[in-house]
Amino acid sequence: MKVVLEGGTKEVKTVWMEGETVKLIDQRLLPDEFKIFSAESVEEVAFAIEDMVVRGAPAIGATAAYGMAQAKMLGRKMDVAASILKDTRPTAHDLFHAVDHMERAIQEGKDPVKAADEYARDITSRCKKIGLNGDKLIKDGDKILTHCNAGALATVDFGTALAPIRAAHRSGKEVFVWVDETRPRCQGAMLTSWELLQEGVPHAIIADNAAGYYMRKGEVNLAIVGADRIAANGDVANKIGTYEKAVVAKENGIPFYVAAPASTFDFSLSDGDQIPIEERNPDEVLFVRGKRIAPKDAEARNPAFDVTPSKYITGYITEKGTLSSEKLIILSE
Amino acid sequence: MKVVLEGGTKEVKTVWMEGETVKLIDQRLLPDEFKIFSAESVEEVAFAIEDMVVRGAPAIGATAAYGMAQAKMLGRKMDVAASILKDTRPTAHDLFHAVDHMERAIQEGKDPVKAADEYARDITSRCKKIGLNGDKLIKDGDKILTHCNAGALATVDFGTALAPIRAAHRSGKEVFVWVDETRPRCQGAMLTSWELLQEGVPHAIIADNAAGYYMRKGEVNLAIVGADRIAANGDVANKIGTYEKAVVAKENGIPFYVAAPASTFDFSLSDGDQIPIEERNPDEVLFVRGKRIAPKDAEARNPAFDVTPSKYITGYITEKGTLSSEKLIILSE
Repeated sequence: MKVVLEGGTKEVKTVWMEGETVKLIDQRLLPDEFKIFSAESVEEVAFAIEDMVVRGAPAIGATAAYGMAQAKMLGRKMDVAASILKDTRPTAHDLFHAVDHMERAIQEGKDPVKAADEYARDITSRCKKIGLNGDKLIKDGDKILTHCNAGALATVDFGTALAPIRAAHRSGKEVFVWVDETRPRCQGAMLTSWELLQEGVPHAIIADNAAGYYMRKGEVNLAIVGADRIAANGDVANKIGTYEKAVVAKENGIPFYVAAPASTFDFSLSDGDQIPIEERNPDEVLFVRGKRIAPKDAEARNPAFDVTPSKYITGYITEKGTLSSEKLIILSE
Repeated sequence: MKVVLEGGTKEVKTVWMEGETVKLIDQRLLPDEFKIFSAESVEEVAFAIEDMVVRGAPAIGATAAYGMAQAKMLGRKMDVAASILKDTRPTAHDLFHAVDHMERAIQEGKDPVKAADEYARDITSRCKKIGLNGDKLIKDGDKILTHCNAGALATVDFGTALAPIRAAHRSGKEVFVWVDETRPRCQGAMLTSWELLQEGVPHAIIADNAAGYYMRKGEVNLAIVGADRIAANGDVANKIGTYEKAVVAKENGIPFYVAAPASTFDFSLSDGDQIPIEERNPDEVLFVRGKRIAPKDAEARNPAFDVTPSKYITGYITEKGTLSSEKLIILSE
């Protein structure tokens, strides 16, 4: 992805490996500071996933792949490393997919770093295809709603939901993006807006509450979001709030697309209610950037994801084309 | 309303008059500090409304009534005072209702302070009736969703949406409240939670994004919100996000009620799309309690209210009973 640094522009990936170190853009510090986080052990890679140095299902997958490669290089037991990595966050399917993939590759005697690099390159190439496939859905002048960050930062490069927007912008279409701030962690305001600024895509941040207002006013033509896990029937687990946006989009006749690579689909689950939903620390709701926004004794609840039933989803933008829920099965092949 | 102060409990109103001073709970400082704001002129009363020392349609109405009384006492021109007060916030109907009411009362030779006191007492008595009427809709064990603050702080005492909850709690019913934090200004997290804590009502603050999650999970039995202005056909302007909650509630078969006194109804408007919607400073989205949550160059949009069409509203809890949209006309009599 493009990153504007001291006047110049640099191409940076979300995660990569240097020697025995897993390197990550530290997303906890964005948009204020652009810094690289170095993980020297599988425990530090697990910490990076858990503490959200890195987030977004495909990026978590790539990070876990590098974590497995690093563990192998450092002589750690593969089953222990796999279990430490899988124990970080329960919802993103890519995490489990990547760890299993790396265990198989290493068992088959493949070079671990090459296998992880291949996994990461593969995600990037799938995201590029998602961009090209999604670009076909975008018309000149479209106003597009997105929720959370499903950009380059959430993948390895390019993004899922942001890939079509990036492609449309680069191909010269005028697009405008409504960026849901995405409480509680504000990944929309902090990360999606940051990525769109690097890329020069016009956009406005809105409170999550305002998305429906603009939909009803006819100022949203299209909604595109990412996914953390998609069940066989097309039900989607994604950032909390996605469900509300999808229901309101349907009510207003606005096409609502989910952009995700095959690795996010979990064909072992028949529907979305089987997807485990992570409940995170209530302090993420009670504090914003270290400032308490509630009375001292107040309590909060903090589910990180919700499930959007497939009936609200117009289509799935994948590396194999934009599919209806009935056609998703081709991704399992 | 009950306020817990240094161990003891005191009864305090949101706004009242002492001599020639209009006194207000400074809601900008809650929940951290409980302080009283003194307005010595109509300009200071207008500032209090504009800067949201006081907010909530009925409370804005009462404050404007006291502002008119004060202006009369200080020998200000009534038409000038009326125009200064009306020029503060465009959406709340009670503001215009209260100023017009006071102009008439003063023209008729009534004592200005007595007239304003009567106006404020009248709101309180209507809110109490709203509480008793709404209590009938609440069953023991109900989990109730509310958005923004439509409590005692938004009225003079007791509240509109919170009045039924308060009445149910005081009558011994077990109720639990899901409190939408209500970005961008977080009146749910800051004010509703504070009021419920004073009253001892069990509740949890959630990100606005999580309301749909709990609705779909069957953990919300009932939704009650307030209103800033209601058109003749029952369309409701209320805090941004209300529309989304109402659509998702309907989708999940959850009754969605609006609680408001007659002064909030504007029978001069045939539908909600005629209600002017205030767009506030984008910094309310970009900053939370003084901390920026977005990149330096990012832009934001900040509509403060949205319109919920009457088809999403189960009923209107008023001082004259809980009415369907067809029956609202009795409030104009």
